[in-house]
Amino acid sequence: MEDLNALFASRVVGAQSSIVRELLAFSKMPHIISLAGGIPAADMFDLEGIEAATLEAMKMGVSAYQYSVTDGEPELRERVTHLIAERGIESDKDQVVITSGSQQGLDLVARTFIDAGDVVLVEQPTYLAAIQVFRMAGAEIASIKGSTDGLDLDDLEAQVKALKAQNKRIKALYIVPTFANPTGSTMSEANRVRLLSLAVEYNFVILEDDPYGEIRFEGDRVPSIYGLAKRTATGEDHAVYLSSFSKILVPGLRLGFIVANKAIREKIVLVKQSVDLHTPVLPQLIVEKYLASGHLKDRIPAISYTYGQRCASLMKALDEYVGEDLEYQKPVGGMFLWARLKNGMSATKLLNYGKDAGVVFVPGAAFYAEGADDSTLRLSFATVNPEGTVEAAKRLAVAIQKYKESN
Amino acid sequence: MEDLNALFASRVVGAQSSIVRELLAFSKMPHIISLAGGIPAADMFDLEGIEAATLEAMKMGVSAYQYSVTDGEPELRERVTHLIAERGIESDKDQVVITSGSQQGLDLVARTFIDAGDVVLVEQPTYLAAIQVFRMAGAEIASIKGSTDGLDLDDLEAQVKALKAQNKRIKALYIVPTFANPTGSTMSEANRVRLLSLAVEYNFVILEDDPYGEIRFEGDRVPSIYGLAKRTATGEDHAVYLSSFSKILVPGLRLGFIVANKAIREKIVLVKQSVDLHTPVLPQLIVEKYLASGHLKDRIPAISYTYGQRCASLMKALDEYVGEDLEYQKPVGGMFLWARLKNGMSATKLLNYGKDAGVVFVPGAAFYAEGADDSTLRLSFATVNPEGTVEAAKRLAVAIQKYKESN
Repeated sequence: MEDLNALFASRVVGAQSSIVRELLAFSKMPHIISLAGGIPAADMFDLEGIEAATLEAMKMGVSAYQYSVTDGEPELRERVTHLIAERGIESDKDQVVITSGSQQGLDLVARTFIDAGDVVLVEQPTYLAAIQVFRMAGAEIASIKGSTDGLDLDDLEAQVKALKAQNKRIKALYIVPTFANPTGSTMSEANRVRLLSLAVEYNFVILEDDPYGEIRFEGDRVPSIYGLAKRTATGEDHAVYLSSFSKILVPGLRLGFIVANKAIREKIVLVKQSVDLHTPVLPQLIVEKYLASGHLKDRIPAISYTYGQRCASLMKALDEYVGEDLEYQKPVGGMFLWARLKNGMSATKLLNYGKDAGVVFVPGAAFYAEGADDSTLRLSFATVNPEGTVEAAKRLAVAIQKYKESN
Repeated sequence: MEDLNALFASRVVGAQSSIVRELLAFSKMPHIISLAGGIPAADMFDLEGIEAATLEAMKMGVSAYQYSVTDGEPELRERVTHLIAERGIESDKDQVVITSGSQQGLDLVARTFIDAGDVVLVEQPTYLAAIQVFRMAGAEIASIKGSTDGLDLDDLEAQVKALKAQNKRIKALYIVPTFANPTGSTMSEANRVRLLSLAVEYNFVILEDDPYGEIRFEGDRVPSIYGLAKRTATGEDHAVYLSSFSKILVPGLRLGFIVANKAIREKIVLVKQSVDLHTPVLPQLIVEKYLASGHLKDRIPAISYTYGQRCASLMKALDEYVGEDLEYQKPVGGMFLWARLKNGMSATKLLNYGKDAGVVFVPGAAFYAEGADDSTLRLSFATVNPEGTVEAAKRLAVAIQKYKESN
């Protein structure tokens, strides 16, 4: 083992499995209500539609099973351009790369832009698997203050200036600007425009991750940063768009996509060639046939409505059963409710009482690259029906009571 | 663009697409006979069996489409242990990681073991996508002389000593020990045993890539290096086994696997979690159901027989139509014939005449990390039927004739 440890790369020596992955085990225990998942609701999967698409895809015969092109099936890339046109992004299929989920999209952009020691800016708190990816690539993470408007741009500019003064190479800002994970926050259009001008001025690329943007409960769509960038002269060099079918269709097919200008895309495709040659063909054809069926247009409102109901129900139950011990930030879309325990309570400690009471969540500390606020927690409502949210809130109240009694 | 180029990681700045991927385009042109592919023969795909397995897999319902575990579906990992037991490797399913093709397997092990500046030893020549992967990970490549017995172990030991004397960190040796790509060579059991003892003595890990081992035309199986390693006290710390369903079933589902001891596997799974969370579920279930059907037992002899016929036919046609201008190394399995042009001819130059004559191949220079021998070329016979091999040899003869006339 001595010898073996000397052989591992430094990136894996101290690496640990994500707490979200670890808590996944609890979601399979029947006596536990899990608010810990980042997973979409299986009861919203359109199995019938996907099975019909699978039968269509199988008709493609040999071409569904032979090696194929690295950037993805052309017909699917074409469909992606139509899908994102509805999100206000004009593109052509030669700007699209199909990825094995948006997690792979993150890994590909990290390896396209990051050398060891480069700085990646992230919102604090942010998606923890993104932090993992950037760390694996050797990046230094600089955490920018969050705000209810998504990101504190004054803090961003101040930190960028300070980092530049230290001769740090700032390569990228990672952000989920719409219905962020974990906070649920959405950045205003005005701030998106200002962020883009900062990216141009200080020469970094905005990695815009948009897995949840379609799942809106109320209000109007805010334009995508990449969509805004395309309308400026040099902006498109400074923004890359990542998205996924995981939250609007199903996650198990592992299908996501990156959209970028052609110079950036060319490099991403080179990395992908080395990483896995290409994403499996059959899942690509299944999604392409599903998109061709037109069913997604009905599904997105259905998912948004259901998740909105579940979110409202959870908030109401928290108000009723947990009350003053916890405050939360009301989201207008996505899958997550970001909450904070009062009176100095620790969410990490509360989780142990929660497990005993039959409810789990993710302590918010997991989403901080540095300076974790352990009073925070992320509650996912996507997979819990209204009766479940009431029971979850009751159990949370029990857990908090037990926690207080023991301290 | 100035600004943008400053943002790219150094690994992509000079990177180029693989010539094998570029030549793939020629395989789709009806007037070209391609000996350039690394692709298996589509006429050997068991479409009927795969479609039946797909229908079975679809019966799994929601679990075929939800997020799943990073290391792969347990039932498929169990099946893999049975598959490799027939190759002489005893294992349990918790030593197996399912990968998105064996290309991803290579990327995962590279990132598990390689820090920038670490040395990876490779046979010269070797699989060029492996060289790409190790370069992307920042490795220095040291090329070890090849031999008809796979690898010149005296050269290996001499180079290892010289590199250690320079304080280089030697992390891994990459090798395709059975029916190598591109040379078709197979390493003897005695040399495998000696290689393993060198790995233990000098503390590096052998990355044993075995995509073609089942496709044997004649002679007896040689034990896998990993299988041999498992029978020694410390050997299993020094060998990792990679394989794939691409050559024995179909490549488009992108399914491969890694087998390693548990300490190494744990690190590989951590990397995979960051890379793509998990391999798509449906393709895993399809392969699992296919393996359950027992059909693979019939397919492997059928593929081996057909490829053996195609290889024999190509060799005979080369003898008859090309004759003295080219010599080749007779393989006893796999997909490739390794050849050498005589009289100082360049395979890179010949390729241009080949394109005009309607035949393409891969110039051998692509498979050298350094010191390329441009007289060499790789001829893939897998996808070309006997009439095609005759026509290909005739066209090669025409190309050689034209080349000679112009020089």
